[in-house]
Amino acid sequence: MTDFAAWMQACQARMERVLADCLPAATLAPQRLHEAMRYAVLDGGKRVRPLLALAAGEVTGAAAERVQHAAAAVELIHVYSLVHDDLPAMDDDALRRGKPTVHVEFDEATALLVGDALQSLAFELLASHKLAADAATQLAMVHVLAQASGSRGMAGGQAIDLASVGQPLELTELEFMHIHKTGALIRAAVLLGAHCGILTEAAATSLDRYAKCIGLAFQVVDDILDAEASTATLGKTAGKDAARNKPTYVSLLGAARARELAQELRADAHAALDTLSGSTTRLRQLADFIIERSY
Amino acid sequence: MTDFAAWMQACQARMERVLADCLPAATLAPQRLHEAMRYAVLDGGKRVRPLLALAAGEVTGAAAERVQHAAAAVELIHVYSLVHDDLPAMDDDALRRGKPTVHVEFDEATALLVGDALQSLAFELLASHKLAADAATQLAMVHVLAQASGSRGMAGGQAIDLASVGQPLELTELEFMHIHKTGALIRAAVLLGAHCGILTEAAATSLDRYAKCIGLAFQVVDDILDAEASTATLGKTAGKDAARNKPTYVSLLGAARARELAQELRADAHAALDTLSGSTTRLRQLADFIIERSY
Repeated sequence: MTDFAAWMQACQARMERVLADCLPAATLAPQRLHEAMRYAVLDGGKRVRPLLALAAGEVTGAAAERVQHAAAAVELIHVYSLVHDDLPAMDDDALRRGKPTVHVEFDEATALLVGDALQSLAFELLASHKLAADAATQLAMVHVLAQASGSRGMAGGQAIDLASVGQPLELTELEFMHIHKTGALIRAAVLLGAHCGILTEAAATSLDRYAKCIGLAFQVVDDILDAEASTATLGKTAGKDAARNKPTYVSLLGAARARELAQELRADAHAALDTLSGSTTRLRQLADFIIERSY
Repeated sequence: MTDFAAWMQACQARMERVLADCLPAATLAPQRLHEAMRYAVLDGGKRVRPLLALAAGEVTGAAAERVQHAAAAVELIHVYSLVHDDLPAMDDDALRRGKPTVHVEFDEATALLVGDALQSLAFELLASHKLAADAATQLAMVHVLAQASGSRGMAGGQAIDLASVGQPLELTELEFMHIHKTGALIRAAVLLGAHCGILTEAAATSLDRYAKCIGLAFQVVDDILDAEASTATLGKTAGKDAARNKPTYVSLLGAARARELAQELRADAHAALDTLSGSTTRLRQLADFIIERSY
């Protein structure tokens, strides 16, 4: 196993423990809701956003014991968005991370409440653990996550996505959607991890540029995988963008140009890290991982 | 107009301005989502939770210019819960505050995202305005609101409520549900308003007791009104608890005993305020208002 693969595995195991600890026990009332929250969050996903937070924390000298709770908060926001996106009123999907989606395994009302409660829990985490040098920084972290999650961030991107089904979208409009839908939360993951250490304004600007490139690259690769990989490999329904006539990087640019774009974004992400003085090894490796992944 | 009615009207007008200012303009992208968020929040409701926050702020000497943003945050959480509760997968209601519900006026996916984005905006408000003496207190306020909203608070109460339809519930179980479903957020409103001023531990305990009584009284009166008032008076569908065989204080205790209980809770709420040194006039009047209201 490479050094990076070992690091990633250790981080994923750490996050599984942290998430299991921060979620209410399934024996606590209301049991069914707590059971469904644990079903949605645990034992699944690559934890890309937590990995980015932990890697960004290495740049600013943050202790992993602090970053892990900020990372968990971002992951909870991500999972809540998946649970709501999978609902019949949205993408109506039955499979996620190789398992039945929450509304299929439980019911729609429970899936709705799972998402709602996971969002609350994300902010509770940011407020109930010592994460940064001072309370003012931690309050700024609440601000970053709230903005990234809301109508000018992830939820807004989802609204633009819904409105775009069957619409002829320009490349700039597609980018605008993804900057909101996936980019905002990836940016929050990087910044929140970095805030747990000593973050200068110059470093924040570089990390922001890195995160923007990675966020777009992530989506470009997602579109390539959705067009080319199988449902079994992805653990979620493949080919659904094309089936719904959804505009993607592949449908707009073709697969070859989309692959080139992903490589350009990887180079830009690496370049953004060159100005930083802390350890950027993990962020570089994560950029490579995000571009080269096959699921 | 009585002095209290004038105060209430001034507070409601203040909250309408604050909420209109904190919601993104309907001209900002994504426009339809922002339009729906404004539709859900503005021009409706008694603003009971903001009134409680502003009244609690008077006890601890907080400036209304600070309390108003904490009050708005609580109201946004309340409104998001109404939007999600009205969805077909939950209570499936077509009328709210005298207007078509959000999923009827817009669509289900938009209503889902409106609720999600309003929750994010609530936490954004707590992090982006100067509300308390220091950042640590403000972070504690984030914690209070997150806990009150989550699976051990409002969302959890909603889950218990859903599970209880058609079930024979004991009085203690009904109370357990309401302490979560409505009580937690009413408690948060009082505490958040108080945190904007100088809040001692003793005062927090008294306010907590007041809030618990008011929260239950609010629900008892809601049940009485649902059983006896008309849809036109309420601005939402009346008689729906009985129609769904939902346990209520009226179905468990009878209307006469429910009315007595509301009066006892009012007396307890007043008694809790007796130990406080600040100005408790508005909190007393609000207790009376909550018990005597007819809509």
